[in-house]
Amino acid sequence: MTTVVIASYFEEEYIRRIREVDGRLRVLYREDLVPPPRWPGDHAGSEDWKRTQRGEDEFLAMLGEAEVLYDFPRGHVDDLVEVAPKLRWVQGSMAGAGEVAQRAGLGETDVVVTTASGIYSGPLAEFVLMAMLQHAKDLDRLQSDKAEKIWRQGTTGTLERKTLCVVGTGSIGRAIAVRARPFGMRIVGVKRTVREDDAAWDYADELYATAELHDALGEADYVAVTLPGTPETRRLLDAEAIAAIKPGAHFSNVGRGAVVDEAALVEALQSGHLSGAALDVFEVEPLPAESPLWGLDNVIISAHTTDVVPDLINAAQTALFCENLRRYLAGEELLNVLDKRLLY
Amino acid sequence: MTTVVIASYFEEEYIRRIREVDGRLRVLYREDLVPPPRWPGDHAGSEDWKRTQRGEDEFLAMLGEAEVLYDFPRGHVDDLVEVAPKLRWVQGSMAGAGEVAQRAGLGETDVVVTTASGIYSGPLAEFVLMAMLQHAKDLDRLQSDKAEKIWRQGTTGTLERKTLCVVGTGSIGRAIAVRARPFGMRIVGVKRTVREDDAAWDYADELYATAELHDALGEADYVAVTLPGTPETRRLLDAEAIAAIKPGAHFSNVGRGAVVDEAALVEALQSGHLSGAALDVFEVEPLPAESPLWGLDNVIISAHTTDVVPDLINAAQTALFCENLRRYLAGEELLNVLDKRLLY
Repeated sequence: MTTVVIASYFEEEYIRRIREVDGRLRVLYREDLVPPPRWPGDHAGSEDWKRTQRGEDEFLAMLGEAEVLYDFPRGHVDDLVEVAPKLRWVQGSMAGAGEVAQRAGLGETDVVVTTASGIYSGPLAEFVLMAMLQHAKDLDRLQSDKAEKIWRQGTTGTLERKTLCVVGTGSIGRAIAVRARPFGMRIVGVKRTVREDDAAWDYADELYATAELHDALGEADYVAVTLPGTPETRRLLDAEAIAAIKPGAHFSNVGRGAVVDEAALVEALQSGHLSGAALDVFEVEPLPAESPLWGLDNVIISAHTTDVVPDLINAAQTALFCENLRRYLAGEELLNVLDKRLLY
Repeated sequence: MTTVVIASYFEEEYIRRIREVDGRLRVLYREDLVPPPRWPGDHAGSEDWKRTQRGEDEFLAMLGEAEVLYDFPRGHVDDLVEVAPKLRWVQGSMAGAGEVAQRAGLGETDVVVTTASGIYSGPLAEFVLMAMLQHAKDLDRLQSDKAEKIWRQGTTGTLERKTLCVVGTGSIGRAIAVRARPFGMRIVGVKRTVREDDAAWDYADELYATAELHDALGEADYVAVTLPGTPETRRLLDAEAIAAIKPGAHFSNVGRGAVVDEAALVEALQSGHLSGAALDVFEVEPLPAESPLWGLDNVIISAHTTDVVPDLINAAQTALFCENLRRYLAGEELLNVLDKRLLY
């Protein structure tokens, strides 16, 4: 028997689906021992929530038997290796599980970590495309004209024949590119290294290695940052990189806030070097009240939840986990395995 | 020699391209005899503009020799047949040239009319996709939260797995569908008649004939109306059709205002039967100040110019005209020929 412990909240329907994957599974789940979701699809739960002492004992007993974990367990990330000695695989619920895997000290173990990479890509791409379109068609002006009942005929912009620079060509970058391309956009991708047979050529007109980031940014009417937070990506979009972006461009970030020098971004938005931005992630979250971003007209702010689509998320996540469970039992390679060196 | 008269404003570059199509062309164009554009890409010009008496005589002399007209001539639509007796073909600058061709009385002549259908489809599709995305992701809430510096974590919507009903599967409907499909939407098309080998099957998951319009609307999370203004399409979206739309759906119209019963649409938006609308066309244009549409929060209003993209428009239009000129001289079938019975 393989013992699977489900360590965050999932609807009954999804628990049932997991149980049905294989008769050799022993699936442990106690709804009262995981933090209740703050909204459908939430897995972190409120910071105030705590297990009772008895609940804590029972939860530790479950973790002690876990060979497979579905999500990182609340309250036991830092001591995961000790409390779950039989652990061989954790399926995270986040797209970027590198930070939490590192915190759990799994880098030095044989425990396999798989991420939910890909699950959130569609909703994130929608946020970027929404932002690009409202920018191109000047929705702000349409709305202010409407407020004053102004029938203003004139010209509008378009995404057609514009260049979109997607920084990071993982599943989010791909999701953005495949949606942007039918608009007649030219797609320029930036990735660590570029090979001739790179899969990203399927959806990119041009690929640049990270070393050539500034060249790529210089061509961009639109920039979309999708990079995970790793030591390597930290402040990759620094003041120099932002200055290298084609003047007047629009900037989106749906990766991690640490990838961008936020003060430099603010300056570029204030000076007009950048014509607008759409941000789902920030250097400090929640975004502090004193951040100048709140006051900039040309900025769209989302509270790091533009990927949380009820139903879609837990359904897709559980479908991924079930497929991985099947592969695990069959001894096949798992999907979305975290590279513990690169942390994505 | 074939005499071509260019009857509305085009930039010098495009005039030159037309002259270069073939040595057998005699191209007549006088910038001072056509209305100056109110914005780049405009062909109608201000209502106040008038030719001098001498200019009028000179313009009439040009029309008298025209075998081919590039656009309908300002001030001479109603008497076109009399003032241009040698006319054999008019290339219009509008996507829907049915109304003006009828006014010119060309329905009873052998004069071929070609439209600019397709040229405007991309920008119109962008307007519809922008509206659908800002609706799905609740951009209004993001903006109002931002105004109050509220960091609101929670769920958001998506276009994924939603059904888009495209009413009218011409080039605009196609442009919308090919952009919406990569978002994971299900596309339902409505067209006059449906054949098994219909080209629209390339991008639609389901096709309904106009007679089954209500069934199609009942499945729609999003409705996009793209129909031209013809006697047949007049008020096709009447109160009954609007009532047949799936409750809570979002509604776009980029076809013609006359296709929709605007009072019924307003009522559906006020009652909540429809959750939002994006309109580029209206029953009466300019939209009267007393229209309740101005005051509805869930409506985006554009002044029938969301298709006017500078450069793109005149460049694409002239490329189409040049190709048609080549075909005309070679005795081949022209592109975008207006069906004088169906008026599109």
